[in-house]
Amino acid sequence: MNEFLFKVDVDGHCWLDDHTLKISQSVWLNGMPEAELLERAMIIKEEAEASQIYNKGYFGTPQSGGALKLELVEGIFLSESGRIDVKKKGRRMTFPQLLHVANNIHPNFGIKYLVYRDLRLRGYVVKPCVDPLDFRVFPRGGSPSKTPSKYWVSALSERSIFDLKELRKHLSKAMQVKKELLLAVVDEESDLTYYLARVVKPKGKRGKKRKKPKAHSLLLEDRVMVMDEQEARALYEHGFYGKMIGSRLQLSLIETAYLLEKGMIEVKNAKTGRRIGLHSFLKKARKIQPDFGLRLKVFRDLEDKGVIVKTGFKYGSHFRAYTMDPHKAHAKYLVHAFSAGHKGMWPEVSRAVRVSHGVKKDILFGMVGKEIEYVALKRVRP
Amino acid sequence: MNEFLFKVDVDGHCWLDDHTLKISQSVWLNGMPEAELLERAMIIKEEAEASQIYNKGYFGTPQSGGALKLELVEGIFLSESGRIDVKKKGRRMTFPQLLHVANNIHPNFGIKYLVYRDLRLRGYVVKPCVDPLDFRVFPRGGSPSKTPSKYWVSALSERSIFDLKELRKHLSKAMQVKKELLLAVVDEESDLTYYLARVVKPKGKRGKKRKKPKAHSLLLEDRVMVMDEQEARALYEHGFYGKMIGSRLQLSLIETAYLLEKGMIEVKNAKTGRRIGLHSFLKKARKIQPDFGLRLKVFRDLEDKGVIVKTGFKYGSHFRAYTMDPHKAHAKYLVHAFSAGHKGMWPEVSRAVRVSHGVKKDILFGMVGKEIEYVALKRVRP
Repeated sequence: MNEFLFKVDVDGHCWLDDHTLKISQSVWLNGMPEAELLERAMIIKEEAEASQIYNKGYFGTPQSGGALKLELVEGIFLSESGRIDVKKKGRRMTFPQLLHVANNIHPNFGIKYLVYRDLRLRGYVVKPCVDPLDFRVFPRGGSPSKTPSKYWVSALSERSIFDLKELRKHLSKAMQVKKELLLAVVDEESDLTYYLARVVKPKGKRGKKRKKPKAHSLLLEDRVMVMDEQEARALYEHGFYGKMIGSRLQLSLIETAYLLEKGMIEVKNAKTGRRIGLHSFLKKARKIQPDFGLRLKVFRDLEDKGVIVKTGFKYGSHFRAYTMDPHKAHAKYLVHAFSAGHKGMWPEVSRAVRVSHGVKKDILFGMVGKEIEYVALKRVRP
Repeated sequence: MNEFLFKVDVDGHCWLDDHTLKISQSVWLNGMPEAELLERAMIIKEEAEASQIYNKGYFGTPQSGGALKLELVEGIFLSESGRIDVKKKGRRMTFPQLLHVANNIHPNFGIKYLVYRDLRLRGYVVKPCVDPLDFRVFPRGGSPSKTPSKYWVSALSERSIFDLKELRKHLSKAMQVKKELLLAVVDEESDLTYYLARVVKPKGKRGKKRKKPKAHSLLLEDRVMVMDEQEARALYEHGFYGKMIGSRLQLSLIETAYLLEKGMIEVKNAKTGRRIGLHSFLKKARKIQPDFGLRLKVFRDLEDKGVIVKTGFKYGSHFRAYTMDPHKAHAKYLVHAFSAGHKGMWPEVSRAVRVSHGVKKDILFGMVGKEIEYVALKRVRP
């Protein structure tokens, strides 16, 4: 036996796989059930063998007449586990031959197979399901005959596109039937990361506001300053806007735009002394930050929901968001503003989720479409 | 007094600034030293006042004849702190007026000023320095007359470009004179993050290798498999290449390319059974992953230095790298491969550093030029 068997390193990376498969293989060496490879599936014809395979793990779909039809992913897993022999026209098919066949039929079969295999080895009953999702997973101890499935799983390569709109569609379908949506992402080393996706409706506990304060401010480059200390403190305490620097309040562009909309601030150009209205302020801001409009929509939406929104720069996200008094509680969310049709790369998503996980916040993707919706992704171990 | 004074929230964000400035202001209200605003500097002419300002904090540069010349950043700080009165042609200048003047002369004066101010309030003696760097910072308790400076500081806006080549140049200069290089990045809320930049030479402790193993493998889509268990284990144990999945070894494209270069593997196309040489393998790999060549250079460089390199997908970086046996120690580095001329955005850098910080690894930017060099960025509180 190799000394490294079953080892998981301190970072949680699995370095060697288990050998349970090999053990089970020897048990079945004699008189193994036989499956015939068809065009896009396999079939176990002998009734006793068929029911033996179905009853131990709910593989395949029982056919009238006692046979069992297996999807390729199921048949190949059973073959790799040494539980069935697969033949085509009487000739035994090896594992690489089977993979080769499946790959020609299903693009990305390798990815789907790794996910199916991983979930099965975790002890779940997993059933292939209809496009666009890949698998239904039953709760531990559950089965297709007695329990509804718990997760819907989408198996993805880290090289695939992160498509926010498609994800939102999948979420709608899953939510309609009260399933949890799991995204299983396979990296280049065939390691798996599971993300639980959810639609979240953030809501802050900031009570009804007292009388709105009104402050006068100066625009200097990309910063806005309230010079009068009393005005500065009133604005800061009203909604935690800006940052007190000595006796003055420094506001970000996005805070200023929001306060201008609400009529809570007056902005003058520090050079000319001329008043700057909302329209020309937005124009200036967009020049400095091209995605200013997109960010402002999310900022406004959250603020209007009683959430306190500050910059998320230190976390590499657009915002951090507090649902409670920032002096008393951590920011609950990191928020990234995207257009609803955003397409990105998985490693970026992975990094954003990793950051939020590390600082115990939830990452929200603010999808700006006709409405603004928030999709949360969370790393889980199913 | 306001109840929020000096408060720092649980996430470490400073919500209100201190008021020490205001207190010192009252002390100096009567008989404050007077500075005259010149074109690009200020001057305190009265000798007693000049030496008083210089001796308490080493502001400015003493002139022959007893006067003191102040850089704008110094003069404005002293004015904001209530330690000098600034006049131009006999008329007193207010803080916004001074900022306005400075802004017209120095682009990004606001950014530089926030950094200067922050370091001064932390109790450091800070001196403006020549382009392209902004400030020299003396060790706590040190001063220009008795100690060499400790840090060189570059003050940047989060909206500025992260320019790897420029950073490398600054590092060379700093290293020549044995200074530490600090990057002070100001976010849109005027909060500061300090990054210590260093050139790092990673070196692994993997001993001299025994006889190289040789394995046969199949290419299936974007994955390579060694089917023979003995060959698989030999390769895995030799350099922790790939991942054992059951009895087979699954290799990433980059590992396979490296092993092909070293003559440790033979690759066949799973569909056609034909052998694939290094050249056509690289061509295939580049099609799947356009930056494959860049990544391979860093992978090869690190492996050749005895470092064990695995994918960094889970951390949103290109690689994680072990300088010790992965079964016994954490990965020490997260590594990102960049061309030496790479220009990026600061929020991305901030996110990458934040991830590495969260998992207690150092982030390395592998700069691929004529040679390969590694720049590390680390968040610090000076």
